[in-house]
Amino acid sequence: MANTEGSKLWGGRFVGDTDPIMEKFNASIAYDQRMWDADIRGSKAYVKALEKAKLVSTEEMEQILNGMDQIHGEWSKGAFVIKAGDEDIHTANERRLKELIGAPAGKLHTGRSRNDQVVTDMRLWLRDAITTLTNDTLQLISTMVERAAAEIEVLFPGYTHMQRAQPIRWSHWILSHAVALRRDVERLLEIKKRVNVLPLGSGAIAGTPFDIDRELLQKELAFDGISLNSMDATGQRDFVVEFLFWASLCLTHLSKMAEDLMLYSTKEFSFIALSDAYRSFSHQTHLLLINSVFQCAGFMMTLKGLPSTYNKDLQEDKEAMFDCYDTVQAVLQVTTGVMSTLKINQSVMEAALSPDMLATDLAYFLVRKGVPFREAHGISGKAVFTAESKNIALNQLTAEDLSAVSPLFGSDVSSVWDYRSSVEQYSAPGGTAKTSITAQVEHLRTWLKKQAQ
Amino acid sequence: MANTEGSKLWGGRFVGDTDPIMEKFNASIAYDQRMWDADIRGSKAYVKALEKAKLVSTEEMEQILNGMDQIHGEWSKGAFVIKAGDEDIHTANERRLKELIGAPAGKLHTGRSRNDQVVTDMRLWLRDAITTLTNDTLQLISTMVERAAAEIEVLFPGYTHMQRAQPIRWSHWILSHAVALRRDVERLLEIKKRVNVLPLGSGAIAGTPFDIDRELLQKELAFDGISLNSMDATGQRDFVVEFLFWASLCLTHLSKMAEDLMLYSTKEFSFIALSDAYRSFSHQTHLLLINSVFQCAGFMMTLKGLPSTYNKDLQEDKEAMFDCYDTVQAVLQVTTGVMSTLKINQSVMEAALSPDMLATDLAYFLVRKGVPFREAHGISGKAVFTAESKNIALNQLTAEDLSAVSPLFGSDVSSVWDYRSSVEQYSAPGGTAKTSITAQVEHLRTWLKKQAQ
Amino acid sequence: MANTEGSKLWGGRFVGDTDPIMEKFNASIAYDQRMWDADIRGSKAYVKALEKAKLVSTEEMEQILNGMDQIHGEWSKGAFVIKAGDEDIHTANERRLKELIGAPAGKLHTGRSRNDQVVTDMRLWLRDAITTLTNDTLQLISTMVERAAAEIEVLFPGYTHMQRAQPIRWSHWILSHAVALRRDVERLLEIKKRVNVLPLGSGAIAGTPFDIDRELLQKELAFDGISLNSMDATGQRDFVVEFLFWASLCLTHLSKMAEDLMLYSTKEFSFIALSDAYRSFSHQTHLLLINSVFQCAGFMMTLKGLPSTYNKDLQEDKEAMFDCYDTVQAVLQVTTGVMSTLKINQSVMEAALSPDMLATDLAYFLVRKGVPFREAHGISGKAVFTAESKNIALNQLTAEDLSAVSPLFGSDVSSVWDYRSSVEQYSAPGGTAKTSITAQVEHLRTWLKKQAQ
Amino acid sequence: MANTEGSKLWGGRFVGDTDPIMEKFNASIAYDQRMWDADIRGSKAYVKALEKAKLVSTEEMEQILNGMDQIHGEWSKGAFVIKAGDEDIHTANERRLKELIGAPAGKLHTGRSRNDQVVTDMRLWLRDAITTLTNDTLQLISTMVERAAAEIEVLFPGYTHMQRAQPIRWSHWILSHAVALRRDVERLLEIKKRVNVLPLGSGAIAGTPFDIDRELLQKELAFDGISLNSMDATGQRDFVVEFLFWASLCLTHLSKMAEDLMLYSTKEFSFIALSDAYRSFSHQTHLLLINSVFQCAGFMMTLKGLPSTYNKDLQEDKEAMFDCYDTVQAVLQVTTGVMSTLKINQSVMEAALSPDMLATDLAYFLVRKGVPFREAHGISGKAVFTAESKNIALNQLTAEDLSAVSPLFGSDVSSVWDYRSSVEQYSAPGGTAKTSITAQVEHLRTWLKKQAQ
Repeated sequence: MANTEGSKLWGGRFVGDTDPIMEKFNASIAYDQRMWDADIRGSKAYVKALEKAKLVSTEEMEQILNGMDQIHGEWSKGAFVIKAGDEDIHTANERRLKELIGAPAGKLHTGRSRNDQVVTDMRLWLRDAITTLTNDTLQLISTMVERAAAEIEVLFPGYTHMQRAQPIRWSHWILSHAVALRRDVERLLEIKKRVNVLPLGSGAIAGTPFDIDRELLQKELAFDGISLNSMDATGQRDFVVEFLFWASLCLTHLSKMAEDLMLYSTKEFSFIALSDAYRSFSHQTHLLLINSVFQCAGFMMTLKGLPSTYNKDLQEDKEAMFDCYDTVQAVLQVTTGVMSTLKINQSVMEAALSPDMLATDLAYFLVRKGVPFREAHGISGKAVFTAESKNIALNQLTAEDLSAVSPLFGSDVSSVWDYRSSVEQYSAPGGTAKTSITAQVEHLRTWLKKQAQ
Repeated sequence: MANTEGSKLWGGRFVGDTDPIMEKFNASIAYDQRMWDADIRGSKAYVKALEKAKLVSTEEMEQILNGMDQIHGEWSKGAFVIKAGDEDIHTANERRLKELIGAPAGKLHTGRSRNDQVVTDMRLWLRDAITTLTNDTLQLISTMVERAAAEIEVLFPGYTHMQRAQPIRWSHWILSHAVALRRDVERLLEIKKRVNVLPLGSGAIAGTPFDIDRELLQKELAFDGISLNSMDATGQRDFVVEFLFWASLCLTHLSKMAEDLMLYSTKEFSFIALSDAYRSFSHQTHLLLINSVFQCAGFMMTLKGLPSTYNKDLQEDKEAMFDCYDTVQAVLQVTTGVMSTLKINQSVMEAALSPDMLATDLAYFLVRKGVPFREAHGISGKAVFTAESKNIALNQLTAEDLSAVSPLFGSDVSSVWDYRSSVEQYSAPGGTAKTSITAQVEHLRTWLKKQAQ
Repeated sequence: MANTEGSKLWGGRFVGDTDPIMEKFNASIAYDQRMWDADIRGSKAYVKALEKAKLVSTEEMEQILNGMDQIHGEWSKGAFVIKAGDEDIHTANERRLKELIGAPAGKLHTGRSRNDQVVTDMRLWLRDAITTLTNDTLQLISTMVERAAAEIEVLFPGYTHMQRAQPIRWSHWILSHAVALRRDVERLLEIKKRVNVLPLGSGAIAGTPFDIDRELLQKELAFDGISLNSMDATGQRDFVVEFLFWASLCLTHLSKMAEDLMLYSTKEFSFIALSDAYRSFSHQTHLLLINSVFQCAGFMMTLKGLPSTYNKDLQEDKEAMFDCYDTVQAVLQVTTGVMSTLKINQSVMEAALSPDMLATDLAYFLVRKGVPFREAHGISGKAVFTAESKNIALNQLTAEDLSAVSPLFGSDVSSVWDYRSSVEQYSAPGGTAKTSITAQVEHLRTWLKKQAQ
Repeated sequence: MANTEGSKLWGGRFVGDTDPIMEKFNASIAYDQRMWDADIRGSKAYVKALEKAKLVSTEEMEQILNGMDQIHGEWSKGAFVIKAGDEDIHTANERRLKELIGAPAGKLHTGRSRNDQVVTDMRLWLRDAITTLTNDTLQLISTMVERAAAEIEVLFPGYTHMQRAQPIRWSHWILSHAVALRRDVERLLEIKKRVNVLPLGSGAIAGTPFDIDRELLQKELAFDGISLNSMDATGQRDFVVEFLFWASLCLTHLSKMAEDLMLYSTKEFSFIALSDAYRSFSHQTHLLLINSVFQCAGFMMTLKGLPSTYNKDLQEDKEAMFDCYDTVQAVLQVTTGVMSTLKINQSVMEAALSPDMLATDLAYFLVRKGVPFREAHGISGKAVFTAESKNIALNQLTAEDLSAVSPLFGSDVSSVWDYRSSVEQYSAPGGTAKTSITAQVEHLRTWLKKQAQ
């Protein structure tokens, strides 16, 4: 039976040869036009390979190169007109080329397929995006490192599970987040290597049937390497999922930092004051993180379902790539804004230090006098209990109170109750002592300088 | 230190009193304008309660009602102009009201907060959306039921794990998906009950401080009930997450069906031919399902992080609600298109039945002669093995072959090899026999009629 | 080439006819033995239907029933011995039956398949689990309602985004979480209806080929209904995913409550003191929520991939079902423990109220004098600004200060600064006034009583 | 009011000073005992640093080292007895040490915290796990490469979206999956670098207060580097989430391959026969992939919620790490089994090639005669249409039929219809021609050899 009969017989909804909902699903020009520059660069390189393979004449090549430059100009000026039928950026640019130069345009796609064209464009686009993100992250790290250097004298409570634990430097907290971002930069550079591999010359699945010089393409487009297997080259999107994961992990770092700052800015804590512009940035960062994590996981499920080769109706890869880029770029910039403009309340921060945070120091005092740690820890616990029983602060225990707990507590125990000297104990690499923090600052400054080269 | 100094000192990025990226995050008018009608309905009801509470005069009420009608007209005609500063649909409508009627507009928001206003609008919008989806699902079920009735004579292989298992009716397969969609309708109606509850009159968190008659509001807006606790009413979005989950579960049903159809339409199977328009519908459905599942899960994580009351920068609830609605509505319609237009190849379907699918029937033959099932199953296995050894089909075993396996196999065993009579064994409720399928069709027709009332 | 050659030629890993890793994947007895009771109940009902269909004699039926009772006794006493080859609970029980009663055991499975047997067992098990969870949730709600009733006089700050917003009753906060749990109970009862449907008599896919009385089975097993389509009955797990979603949504409620409590118990807030046993309960609840959300989403992806009918290697449904049940049951009980044992610090809670939280009340004061709300809101904003400029609390503005802002502020404005009378304004249904809270308590007490019947 | 009163007043559930459910949540020995060896290695290194810092005497160090060796022996022999109170592997080993050597055991933990101890153990364990997985993946790649080399002559259809697209070599398909796994190995080695960093000497948050030589620790434990910031070192679990992501991405590769193989093994395709042992391996792989993706995403959400420093009730990191390791290790081995034992049906594979798959070759034929590709593509489309109209295969068009479509089709067009010569066109790097496939095989063999060094 015919389709039309079928549609009359069983369904109320009219459907002809095409279904408008399906057509909408299949069009991608609305978002993939972002890759216009990459698409033009790819085509310009490709026509050079065609000329070398004698599939276009030198004259035809020049016409195509000039046409492409003209299209580039139109996009740059916002003058490019998308027409009905321009399903995606690739067909739009080729359609325009034909309008501009006529017949030779029909030779540009020789031996190329949309499969290898699309993925080449994506890799070119993402390579540039990664450069931008690297710079944004470095700028944020730099902001943080300089803030840490400038405010190195400020102490405040280090928390575990929202409960005050040990006195630390505020700079120590800042740097703990900066080193996480440094790892993000390292990871991004590793991903870039795998992004920067040439797929062009892979055709649809089987490869290119013509004498296309892939090394020429690589050189023209400044790729680091050439894909090994044409079926893998056109069908895989590992580089996208790696990027999505990178964005998610980076956002966990930014979101953890944001959450701490939000808490520190509550009336109850009052450690810092955020600029009004950033009142909701912690919440926004959190939401964008959730979005990114689920986009990454969702795309992995999509990847799995992805057939062995690219097909035009896979849109998710590009949308996810663009969306995650926009998100993480925005959050990196906002966080730089936050870290540049927040004001700290040093007096409130230091007033939040309390003697119970020095219970471990009391144990260390005994360890230094030769008491095994586990025993010292027990004695310190008794002192805490005594103070609680008397309803006084730990440092208000009298010499008698303390010596009742352990005869090793002499008058020298009073040295324990100084927060600054407590902090200075932690002078090993990575610790919260001033020398140690300074070393971390210097280490990061050196590393930043190296990245800038 | 001042913000501006801070920004010079540490950050390269200039940030003044506001951050343009943050402002973009906070604006929602781009998508929440969809609720313009719900927002107007909510305000019209609210002003009546204000009048009853003597917080506006009757004349002021009339002015507000007329103004709102005028705004309604503008939106209907696409003539409403969004201005800079219209952060969301609620401020846009109120701003316009003030332009139209002046001072009395300033009274409309008395005792109302954006918190209870937003959630009222969302519930009104979603209530209508659910009605549309219910009808779309019913139309699809109806299409499927009528197709099942029309093609009841067609047999084909029932598969388990892509391996042929038992002969069944094609209608049995159709109806197995129809009953899943029927449950979706039931679930949707349950959710509607919980959506259709009035939150207006809950203020920001604490309730309304004026004499607002919430029963009047309920009646005006045709809600089924009134929220019990103002803090819960403004702060919870359970009804959104319930809807997202509904959409996800419904999409699993549509996607499973789509995947079967895609497989049946491959060259290797060739059971059906899909209209060209629907070549990628299975893939699209699958992608939309993934999207929806991750949106639902992501929103649950967001819900958790949601503070006790609504805050303007929560945008995710509305975006997710709109997005899932659009998705599931499109897929329901497309699937109706597919089920209306696909063509079946009855001869290929029936040629795909093979005697090995009747091995269980061979066992049943013996059971009917009194052999315990486990023993009969073993004998049938031996027959299969004999056929495989001889490299012939199961039904090509000679009478001698079979009686060697079990003396109970007489000449009457030949009755086993008829696919139609095999299928007719399954006449208990739910089975694949013709009477049983007919009963399922009738049951669903009756149910559909009842829903239409 | 033969398998063994293949394994020598290409793979270093030895693999014979079976692969021990695959066998481990396929065995489920380790966890599905939990359904031993359901499996026995299902078999006892089924043998009665076999007897009615004359597929077993009355004597055989009695033997099977007695054997099953004996197996029940063994499981009850922990004396049942699982043997090698007992792949799952169903084969284990049938194997044991054969040991106990011999030949008639071989008839029990007549016309039944593992497909309908497994899903029948799951539905029986989950039905009981739902009853337990309903009771646990009701107990928690009851605990919360009584606490809200007992501590109705306590005021504290209502927060939005961790920033203090309005004074509310502590009971209002408690009840806002109780009403969310009430919806959870309603949802659970709706799911139960769909769980409590008989699939037995659906065979593998096609139905049962024998004269099995499904209504008899329904009655014996106390199911509310009978499945409509055998292919759907054996292949769908919607009831599992509905349950997983329920657990996730319920856990978002419990986790939100836990997070508030954790914050309230920090040194900085000090509103409440948690029993030592519960120091990490907020974190645990959060982790279990994440786990549950991802289990639900993951299972939806699994559901999608699920072939049209059950197959023995689908284990995820049962594992997810058991795991979510254990999780939510534990968290419900722990939360009951927390809400029973926490101690509040009323003086700290009330000391946290501050005059800036009454800025809206100042606006309402003017509204009651006829000022349009938007204007009143603006005036109140000016008063806040004046107080901030003078660096004093809002309620410390002099009569002159206030009348400079608006002449409508007379001496009667002092009435605004009372937190208790502020709270009493919110007497509409759902509000934070004492009468309104009392009404909520009474409403929930009545509802709880009704559930207990 | 007292806790006990509270529990009587409001909750039915009895709770004393501890809650058994919470205790169960907090205990981790059941799974973290897996790290017994890493824990012992860490402690042995640490005591050497204590000795150097003069916090233990040389004699005490010897006692501790001997004690630890004895404990190692007990674990190796399965003789270690876990006792009540052994909350985790760290307390269990320290408790046992005290039993064995008495007082000096109390000095082992000096200046170390559970925070840096746990994360040191995890990094040591994961480093070894990564070595194992690297070898397993290399073995699988090697199996695949050798199979590709051996079966290089076999052709079959390359599919896009389950529809036949182009003839390719079976080895091309194998290698497309092998190169994806090669990237997995590269990624794993990158992660290893970041795993292999020493956190020991970071204390709880602030660092170590004693003169612990962290370079000594690094050398003893063969770490590649030393953590930069103590707060980051103890509080971050990026290395775990990186590993979980790695496992998920690797499983997408294994699962895609499994799904293709499952499809190729259906009766309808019949390209390959899987060993019986592997009938459900595709489904299992798919389920494990889903599990892994959601574990990774869930852990990222957990990471976010993770407070700035480690706390004993974070269990998810270790459970997820162990679980993903077990999963991916099992699937790698099973896939090696599958790829070693599957049998191909070369004749069926080649019979599945059909002339419509050569439509593009027809266009290339014209391109080689100078027709612009877009025009050639259109002509080829006309030929396809003609064949369909006549209901014959594309290669059955007569010379007249073809020359009617284009005069350029002479008798030489017959050369197009040879599948082997079609495949041989794709001789550029990455293509499906024999030389190209051979080059890929050689490239991978060389790479494998290099890895083995």
